[in-house]
Amino acid sequence: MEKAKLRAPFFVVNPKSYLYGEELLRLARKADELAAAYDFDVLFTAQLIDLPRVIDACPHLIPCAQFMESLKPGRGMGHVLPEALAEAGVRATFLNHAENPSGVHELAAVIERANEVGILTVVCADSVEEGRWIAGLKPDVMVCELTGLIGTGTTADEAYMRSSTKAVKAISPTTQVLQAAGISSGEDVYNAIKFGADGTGGTSGIVAAPDPFAALDEMFAALDRARTDFCQEA
Amino acid sequence: MEKAKLRAPFFVVNPKSYLYGEELLRLARKADELAAAYDFDVLFTAQLIDLPRVIDACPHLIPCAQFMESLKPGRGMGHVLPEALAEAGVRATFLNHAENPSGVHELAAVIERANEVGILTVVCADSVEEGRWIAGLKPDVMVCELTGLIGTGTTADEAYMRSSTKAVKAISPTTQVLQAAGISSGEDVYNAIKFGADGTGGTSGIVAAPDPFAALDEMFAALDRARTDFCQEA
Amino acid sequence: MEKAKLRAPFFVVNPKSYLYGEELLRLARKADELAAAYDFDVLFTAQLIDLPRVIDACPHLIPCAQFMESLKPGRGMGHVLPEALAEAGVRATFLNHAENPSGVHELAAVIERANEVGILTVVCADSVEEGRWIAGLKPDVMVCELTGLIGTGTTADEAYMRSSTKAVKAISPTTQVLQAAGISSGEDVYNAIKFGADGTGGTSGIVAAPDPFAALDEMFAALDRARTDFCQEA
Amino acid sequence: MEKAKLRAPFFVVNPKSYLYGEELLRLARKADELAAAYDFDVLFTAQLIDLPRVIDACPHLIPCAQFMESLKPGRGMGHVLPEALAEAGVRATFLNHAENPSGVHELAAVIERANEVGILTVVCADSVEEGRWIAGLKPDVMVCELTGLIGTGTTADEAYMRSSTKAVKAISPTTQVLQAAGISSGEDVYNAIKFGADGTGGTSGIVAAPDPFAALDEMFAALDRARTDFCQEA
Repeated sequence: MEKAKLRAPFFVVNPKSYLYGEELLRLARKADELAAAYDFDVLFTAQLIDLPRVIDACPHLIPCAQFMESLKPGRGMGHVLPEALAEAGVRATFLNHAENPSGVHELAAVIERANEVGILTVVCADSVEEGRWIAGLKPDVMVCELTGLIGTGTTADEAYMRSSTKAVKAISPTTQVLQAAGISSGEDVYNAIKFGADGTGGTSGIVAAPDPFAALDEMFAALDRARTDFCQEA
Repeated sequence: MEKAKLRAPFFVVNPKSYLYGEELLRLARKADELAAAYDFDVLFTAQLIDLPRVIDACPHLIPCAQFMESLKPGRGMGHVLPEALAEAGVRATFLNHAENPSGVHELAAVIERANEVGILTVVCADSVEEGRWIAGLKPDVMVCELTGLIGTGTTADEAYMRSSTKAVKAISPTTQVLQAAGISSGEDVYNAIKFGADGTGGTSGIVAAPDPFAALDEMFAALDRARTDFCQEA
Repeated sequence: MEKAKLRAPFFVVNPKSYLYGEELLRLARKADELAAAYDFDVLFTAQLIDLPRVIDACPHLIPCAQFMESLKPGRGMGHVLPEALAEAGVRATFLNHAENPSGVHELAAVIERANEVGILTVVCADSVEEGRWIAGLKPDVMVCELTGLIGTGTTADEAYMRSSTKAVKAISPTTQVLQAAGISSGEDVYNAIKFGADGTGGTSGIVAAPDPFAALDEMFAALDRARTDFCQEA
Repeated sequence: MEKAKLRAPFFVVNPKSYLYGEELLRLARKADELAAAYDFDVLFTAQLIDLPRVIDACPHLIPCAQFMESLKPGRGMGHVLPEALAEAGVRATFLNHAENPSGVHELAAVIERANEVGILTVVCADSVEEGRWIAGLKPDVMVCELTGLIGTGTTADEAYMRSSTKAVKAISPTTQVLQAAGISSGEDVYNAIKFGADGTGGTSGIVAAPDPFAALDEMFAALDRARTDFCQEA
């Protein structure tokens, strides 16, 4: 299956395990409206059990798993099968997140499997050095998050964002780079794109905001300004 | 949430990762018809991504996850959240399967979480000794599968079935026992109940049968005879 | 090989990975002197690479691994073989420590292997409930440490010590109980035995003390008083 | 600490968990004699508990751990501390062996730690593609073993050996390549070097040979011929 390249600047809404069920679906519908209104590529992650309803209700989102395995159809009780995700309409997956790290062999294998079934890979590293190394696997998107910043509301600085993006693209020019740790305001979103990221997004900056819908509104408006100012695709 | 005790003899259809998507749903619909026709409690497992469609289409099945974690709402990228499963209508889960073994602390914690959210626990052991030990956690259902028999079409013998069932119930009288390794015919189903199991079921004996629907027909008819012959609930 | 039951009150010096090489050996020699002087059973743990020198230099200590696996001779690159430990003179091992948790199947299997080769098992749980469950495996010694107290210098209270000891012995009367979390003074040592423990000991209370040798002196003197006051074996 | 580069052709004797104690030491002494007689660099692996005796008895061997972790001094019950290995005289370690696979983050971290303490890294991959990727971490030695050949007595063919060696050196020219899967005769040893490997060695081809000492004699004689024929260092 053909994978579409994401149009920069793209956005990722990643509720991790903070939201589920009805509450998750409300946030997904809001993100879907914004994706349509601004014509952005928006990845939306959810618990696997909730993704089918997101897929049904939100045609403008790119449904994204939080984890997938290299498993092939057959045995494998309780593991996550790429073919099952693809047939259900999942189009992207995170891999090697700090809260769910991959094995060396497994990461190489699951990226290969994702390519076979047409699922975009969003692969995490926790330093510039690791980002450079993992870029050798040529994932579709890389995230170089300083693990210590996850959930803090503090973003990496310009130097880190620029050097990690440069390191990844030096090894794999077609890989896009997501800068998302600590993003909690429109200004953070704008700056991430300004500092060279292809995409940005958030978790606690959205789900733990006093008003998550208002947080998304602010972030998408800022992303729109950043698109105008920095992305030739705009 | 209140958990209903399964009515013996119950049946488990466990396609593991052999089936997904449309093909999985066809098997689920067939199992749903048989569950309704015979009035059996039937657990049906699937990839998490496929369970919502099974839940929507098959009201007579007990939707069963193949794995769950002790995670609480919050962080936990890519992990399986009990509350999300419960809200989506999942009513049971396998745990500690030989193909996805649990840690000691995690198994104790996830059974406690399952009890909190009202999900039945079907916990695997791979010997009589382990079954006796794990029964100390008082799961709803225990499976004492000799790992070496999984997928072989060879069932445990009468002595093993009787001794493992007895060992579990000596420690936890309310735990029900599932004998399911190697079940591939109506006769296997009948004998499992005859030899003292509260429930039985299969994976490769169904999904790898020349005609999976015919295999299910035969197994349910045999389960019905076993109910008449051995279960006072019948 | 025959395993000797530990004489209560016993003591455990557990430097984890704080000490190694010459510095570790100096602490071992000090503990060896105290073990001889007071005629106590003293388990001393170390990195595997350091245990042979401890064994050679410290005849009064019971050399104790920090981890072992159920592996049998053969393949198993980089895993810890029970027979190799036993032949080298290791006589005990910790298992399922919070910093190195075991799988369900592995814990049952490795305790069986330890019994085969004559190595005492010191198995950790992190609550009274888990202690009661794991006691079903009848380890030689159980440790019911509230994980949150490890390294804090705060011990569990009397109620916790008494209830966890009682819970373990109700399931496995021959299992001895070690209370060791947060032990950092002679008074802590004395109280642990007063509150029903068969043994006690420490890590950071010793290795992070201003003067580790003085800390050991104080703890052994207190253990001696506790033996006189509470242990009929004295 | 300075790491010496291995002189090609080097040899690895890797008894895994097949041998331990006295029997392991006898094989180590034999390898030590051969290393001295032929003036080869010979890595010899053993259980950690056995390495100190190998170090004491065998001055011509390069003592090699089968596994190490990125742990720093402090907590870390039951984990393998680089500083402890280095102080005890261990000079190399295997990493990411198929029987003990590493995590992505852990492999990057442990190679960095090994460089800090002066321990040579021998890192395994199970295909040419993985070898090319892992070479991005610039380990001292890489092993590209087709997992399916381990223990079979069947070596990879010339094309595989040449392409995997080439792939590794294209990414990391200073990394040396070990070809060791299935090596069971002098001819296998000779061919591995002929086909471009910097080193070779064996496990079951030695420990499971009718006469392990004779197997080593034959392999070292062949390695000597290969050195003369193919290595300019000879």
